[in-house]
Amino acid sequence: MKLKMKKIMRVKGFSFSGVSAGIKAGRKKDLALIASENPATVAGVFTSNKIKAAPVLLDIRRVAGGSASAIVVNSGSANVSVGKRGMTDALCMTSAVEKGLGIKKGSALVCSTGVIGVPLPIEKIECAVPRLIKGLSPDGAESAVRAMMTTDAFPKGVSGRLKINGKTVTIVGLGKGAGMICPDMATMLAFFMTDANVPASLLRRALKDAIDASFNRITVDGDTSTNDTVLAMANSMSGARALKPGSRDYKNFLKLLSKLSIELAHMVVRDGEGATKFIEITIKGAASNKDAERVARTCALSMLVKTAFFGEDPNWGRIMAALGRSGARIREQSVDISINGVKLVRHGVDAGNEASAARAMRKTDIVLVINLGLGKGAYTLWTNDLTHEYVSINADYRS
Amino acid sequence: MKLKMKKIMRVKGFSFSGVSAGIKAGRKKDLALIASENPATVAGVFTSNKIKAAPVLLDIRRVAGGSASAIVVNSGSANVSVGKRGMTDALCMTSAVEKGLGIKKGSALVCSTGVIGVPLPIEKIECAVPRLIKGLSPDGAESAVRAMMTTDAFPKGVSGRLKINGKTVTIVGLGKGAGMICPDMATMLAFFMTDANVPASLLRRALKDAIDASFNRITVDGDTSTNDTVLAMANSMSGARALKPGSRDYKNFLKLLSKLSIELAHMVVRDGEGATKFIEITIKGAASNKDAERVARTCALSMLVKTAFFGEDPNWGRIMAALGRSGARIREQSVDISINGVKLVRHGVDAGNEASAARAMRKTDIVLVINLGLGKGAYTLWTNDLTHEYVSINADYRS
Repeated sequence: MKLKMKKIMRVKGFSFSGVSAGIKAGRKKDLALIASENPATVAGVFTSNKIKAAPVLLDIRRVAGGSASAIVVNSGSANVSVGKRGMTDALCMTSAVEKGLGIKKGSALVCSTGVIGVPLPIEKIECAVPRLIKGLSPDGAESAVRAMMTTDAFPKGVSGRLKINGKTVTIVGLGKGAGMICPDMATMLAFFMTDANVPASLLRRALKDAIDASFNRITVDGDTSTNDTVLAMANSMSGARALKPGSRDYKNFLKLLSKLSIELAHMVVRDGEGATKFIEITIKGAASNKDAERVARTCALSMLVKTAFFGEDPNWGRIMAALGRSGARIREQSVDISINGVKLVRHGVDAGNEASAARAMRKTDIVLVINLGLGKGAYTLWTNDLTHEYVSINADYRS
Repeated sequence: MKLKMKKIMRVKGFSFSGVSAGIKAGRKKDLALIASENPATVAGVFTSNKIKAAPVLLDIRRVAGGSASAIVVNSGSANVSVGKRGMTDALCMTSAVEKGLGIKKGSALVCSTGVIGVPLPIEKIECAVPRLIKGLSPDGAESAVRAMMTTDAFPKGVSGRLKINGKTVTIVGLGKGAGMICPDMATMLAFFMTDANVPASLLRRALKDAIDASFNRITVDGDTSTNDTVLAMANSMSGARALKPGSRDYKNFLKLLSKLSIELAHMVVRDGEGATKFIEITIKGAASNKDAERVARTCALSMLVKTAFFGEDPNWGRIMAALGRSGARIREQSVDISINGVKLVRHGVDAGNEASAARAMRKTDIVLVINLGLGKGAYTLWTNDLTHEYVSINADYRS
């Protein structure tokens, strides 16, 4: 699916840039910069993969300090599994940016996305940094996002505003990622920039909560790439007062951050390599929330369920089989399944609505609801279908 | 991949038949029978899916008795998730066969494979049973196997002989299954018939050991269909003496049973829906055997690794990322990876052999060896690639 990029609002004190450094072929943009006029508080969530890219290892260290002024991002190489030069190159990228911007040593963060095991052409990157900095603009978000894209079909950005003690506060979210069928290896990057005044510890908590409600619901337990990173920066430049834990202002801020985070996560699913369907899976009536999550994830990852959605085939037997192997408590005769409001399975057997279910499946947006009829456990996640195009993209990715 | 069916040896006292009962469209064979002249000892291994087809539930009960004379198998419907009539229909199939063959009530077993949630056309099946029985022949194995096929591209059978106290003993294995990319739902059935004299308790142990070395290495923990079944029958008609636990005869019997079981399992992988590659994954040097298995299964199931094999792209980064998320202990700089003898990764970084690795990947048979460089843990399993054809087969399966 292709979506148009929405217009991104300006966020005070932040500027953006994207250029071609020659990492990718064909003069495609491949180097991005996000810069804050003043040091911002920062929070990050990183891949749980045991093999972590050098930039991830570096950012984990730097984010712990609670403050940052810039994020430099390259696409075309993931800067992982390249030996010791991985860290040297990551440091080199940040120090080029720090020097160019005249900011404190150690105050730039770095992310990489692309092929694993291919060293960065670090001279090309260093050479491009002055141009990158020169290109910084408060309206440069789209340019920056384009420079982060790998197999993404469209650039992804969101923005929104709220009032805090009469001041307008903006949050901007920029992201890349398109491999949600197998989210683990097509790197997902997302960056949230806000001019709110959020202490680092609170920003950390807000980011975690927002991700739990969004990106963690389009990804599978432990299935994260070597480079997955979400960063949030808050530079206080809105002039709004500092957020306090538990305050109404904080709740409003978290609400907007979560909403934008969900929007961005949905874009990643819609872009899902070769996807033709956007599928919301809601599990109800599970013995526990954990059971509901197990069932949702098993269905979302089943290649047979995914291909059935691509084929617009209401083949609910594949869903039943996925339930049975999910590890969750299941009582066959209590299971109800519906697709876009059409009941497919009632009390564990065919509800006799196949023709209308087949029609319902022709829509791009699918809502699959499975009621296990056992308890109050519930969970929702988002996924997409498995298509010929997915195979093509991933069989040919490097060639 | 398509293989020719090998000639199946006769096995004393067993006969086979396959007919079209009209369950599938187009007069395809869809009903099979395996019959022993006298009651055989029997052992079975069944799906761990919590939703079990009615025939599975029935067989579990009957196999516990240790004796059986016949197995009736239908394709076209899995006889699962159809409510109470599932068990009625399964019983009906066995009793039609028991009456027709004049064997003891409860001595026939039954297996079903095909679409979930569609009731069996039981009258058609009852009507076809006399023809099915009439067709029984010691040379009917291929006919029987053809009647079990669903998305299988070729019929699968193996046979072998050994001597036990001077008597020739034969083992025949017949199987169906082709969904090894996602083994969980494309039902796998396998039947081993032997004229050896094997007490039921020993047959159970032998079957379990043979399956652990074969079918359990092409399937993923817990990822089993609602119908997966492996049965073994031993009718003693070779005249060879009864096998005793720990004896040399038993060891030889187990060796042949395991060898045939591996052969049959490999056929299922080669048939893997739309597969173009047969991939052996061997993990060495893991901290433990369990860790080695984790890594092997994560690689075998990774859609990105699978599509890379289809694309003949030595994109080892996807393998590294799979290692990192497998849950196994990994030390990046100790990892070596080779494909068909060509070293791709040495000490965690590119070994510089991409061109020769790409050539090696053009072969149909791929041996992927990953040495984690940590300990003595090892594991081997077999899988295949993910192709356009897989998506086509599974998007269109029912239509």
